[in-house]
Amino acid sequence: MSPPEGFTKVSEEDHRINVVNPYGPLPEDFLSNVSNFQIIESTLREGEQFANAFFSTETKIAIAKALDDFGVDYIELTSPVASEQSRKDCEAICKLGLKSKILTHIRCHMDDAKVAVETGVDGVDVVIGTSQFLREFSHGKDMSYITQSAIEVIEFVKSKGIEIRFSSEDSFRSDLVDLLNIYRTVDKIGVNRVGIADTVGCANPRQVYELVRTLKSVVKCDIECHFHNDTGCAIANAYTALEGGAKLIDVSVLGIGERNGITPLGGLMARMIAADRDYVLSKYKLHKLRDLENLVGEAVRVNIPFNNPITGFCAFTHKAGIHAKAILANPSTYEILSPSDFGLTRYIHFANRLTGWNAIKSRVDQLNLHLTDQQCKEVTEKIKKLGDVRQLNIDDVDSIIKDFHADVTTPQSRPTLMQSVPNSLPRLDEAKPPKSKLAQEITDF
Amino acid sequence: MSPPEGFTKVSEEDHRINVVNPYGPLPEDFLSNVSNFQIIESTLREGEQFANAFFSTETKIAIAKALDDFGVDYIELTSPVASEQSRKDCEAICKLGLKSKILTHIRCHMDDAKVAVETGVDGVDVVIGTSQFLREFSHGKDMSYITQSAIEVIEFVKSKGIEIRFSSEDSFRSDLVDLLNIYRTVDKIGVNRVGIADTVGCANPRQVYELVRTLKSVVKCDIECHFHNDTGCAIANAYTALEGGAKLIDVSVLGIGERNGITPLGGLMARMIAADRDYVLSKYKLHKLRDLENLVGEAVRVNIPFNNPITGFCAFTHKAGIHAKAILANPSTYEILSPSDFGLTRYIHFANRLTGWNAIKSRVDQLNLHLTDQQCKEVTEKIKKLGDVRQLNIDDVDSIIKDFHADVTTPQSRPTLMQSVPNSLPRLDEAKPPKSKLAQEITDF
Repeated sequence: MSPPEGFTKVSEEDHRINVVNPYGPLPEDFLSNVSNFQIIESTLREGEQFANAFFSTETKIAIAKALDDFGVDYIELTSPVASEQSRKDCEAICKLGLKSKILTHIRCHMDDAKVAVETGVDGVDVVIGTSQFLREFSHGKDMSYITQSAIEVIEFVKSKGIEIRFSSEDSFRSDLVDLLNIYRTVDKIGVNRVGIADTVGCANPRQVYELVRTLKSVVKCDIECHFHNDTGCAIANAYTALEGGAKLIDVSVLGIGERNGITPLGGLMARMIAADRDYVLSKYKLHKLRDLENLVGEAVRVNIPFNNPITGFCAFTHKAGIHAKAILANPSTYEILSPSDFGLTRYIHFANRLTGWNAIKSRVDQLNLHLTDQQCKEVTEKIKKLGDVRQLNIDDVDSIIKDFHADVTTPQSRPTLMQSVPNSLPRLDEAKPPKSKLAQEITDF
Repeated sequence: MSPPEGFTKVSEEDHRINVVNPYGPLPEDFLSNVSNFQIIESTLREGEQFANAFFSTETKIAIAKALDDFGVDYIELTSPVASEQSRKDCEAICKLGLKSKILTHIRCHMDDAKVAVETGVDGVDVVIGTSQFLREFSHGKDMSYITQSAIEVIEFVKSKGIEIRFSSEDSFRSDLVDLLNIYRTVDKIGVNRVGIADTVGCANPRQVYELVRTLKSVVKCDIECHFHNDTGCAIANAYTALEGGAKLIDVSVLGIGERNGITPLGGLMARMIAADRDYVLSKYKLHKLRDLENLVGEAVRVNIPFNNPITGFCAFTHKAGIHAKAILANPSTYEILSPSDFGLTRYIHFANRLTGWNAIKSRVDQLNLHLTDQQCKEVTEKIKKLGDVRQLNIDDVDSIIKDFHADVTTPQSRPTLMQSVPNSLPRLDEAKPPKSKLAQEITDF
């Protein structure tokens, strides 16, 4: 049957929406770049503004190589006018021949731009404060001056045939009309990207979504976002920006930067792999994340936070009885991320008073002992009782299990009959000794 | 002039919207509880599920008292059926006579409920897994069984005259219709709160907003939210839930809990004070936050993460030259949070190659030396040069400044004329010695 005049037949097939992953991009977000995002890695720029950071040339090169190996799209470097060595290091990194594109980050001044374009970078990131606060207390310039400077710098950088990004600073406290005006102007001149920056770290996700969506309707170029983490929303804001149509996110390893930093690379990977695992795994070598974090953590002398996404020491450790039970049946019950995607291991913490009999039964099996479910429940009660009195380690639990096992398997007998114990009963000294202090408390299955 | 028939005159005054704080509640969010939220503090329940947590009775009591003093609305405790000591501790905390209401958290079983109501708690938090995952791999019950259990437990707890909350578990992977059905049922029976729980830590802010808004249209009771932090969105999700009409947020000190935990108390305070400073300051003793975090951090043997909101060692430290310059003119330029609200201090890090002359001029003034702006710029260049070679400390910077000052203020003279140096020039040994390693690198103004 042909369709009525004026109508085109549309296959129902084309309209079928099949949302497999509830955490994936929403079908109604037709501007979403959740499955098409890029990373601008700024450990060597924003990260150098972290209080503890002093990167020698060798350290910078080691970090740049590791970032390149991980697969980041861009590596951003400190301005070459910050100091003489900064300029030399920028040139040295440009000469490494990395796959990642190299950017440097400068003020919106011709003086800075002239130095930047000579370093060999693939692109220049220009920034200027547009909020009333920064216009009054930082550079003291008005919007018309800002626009003129921007045009001059952008045209100059473009004339050198390299990429150019124009970003406002403190975008969320800037006047919306001022912002849209200048973004439209620089878009028309032909910047590669415009940047939104939450410089004070206080934007919230719905604000971010609104601003990105609005900007998306004004410019044709890509949108890059930079979120500080003062109020703990930097990862969520980055995700929501991508939903709204931003394409590039600024990150640093462990989130290091001014104050307590920006969107962390690892945290963003956790967020994005939950949304589109195939895309993330196709682009980034996630199993290198831990080494990368250790490299940067050592360079700036900080420990990996205990609660760090993915690599925190307990990110994949399950403790409560009902959690452990379900995880043993199917890890997806209490895990949205798979530790193996990051080259890591899942742990179940059973040596504590919150433990359940399913976790203990699993330990019994691991010790190659044989107890009925009812017996496992009984021995679990004994373990929980000791766990009420003091902190337990694995030796404690194993001893209780083995004693209990000996009791229930040994026939009522005099000590002289001990040799009748079946050979299959493991002796205490056959148990694996604990590997380390950590291994005593948290054991993998 | 009287209005046309059928119209009521409305004063323009009443419609004037005056958004003073761009980070505050949005006028269009008429259901928002951003300025009317409450805290359910779960360090002694969720926090006990943290891998490293073993709380003795004395520690639990110390933490409960500190939480009460801080001003949390509710304190949630581990189920009294978890172990015998858990039950005794619950009873002991109920007898402390705290201002915060005491809750305990149980499975949706009559066995658990009967024990819970005898402990002296002000309320019981009931939870059951509603997702397909948990129904299949955890408790194995269908929705009709869940509903029946819920009704029985809720009516029993209500009959004892104490508060009752019903929460689903893994709400974001549960069937929406199932969820709304059971929430409406328990709302009609008269629960005080229903709970949404992102048990696997993967909800994103716009999803949260949608679910809370939808639920808000179905139930009359309050809505409580619980967010795990596996993908770094727990603070942002909590904020967005409040925007959507949720009223209570589950938190723990430092976010400790299963895996890498839930919304942290400190991080939520950072987020909320940016939105409604007056409300937050009127309810919570923010200057006690640091002690509270130290207390819990010591109890579970973890360090405060370097990038912790508010109390991280560099949360209020500014480094780059342009940041330092603006902060010196007006701290609001690069700070949305005021460190003094938390009893903390702002720092400017000037001993590094990214430093600017404004920061150095401020140090010159602090040393009670007198240099012109041009001279400050010259000495800043010297400092940046040394900063290119190695990590600097304050002694380095002070020495360079003092040498430079001596050079420019001492007349061309032979060494024998050194006594002519004015008395006002501070001697090197008059400079305050560095207090500690940290103070060497980061100095307050």
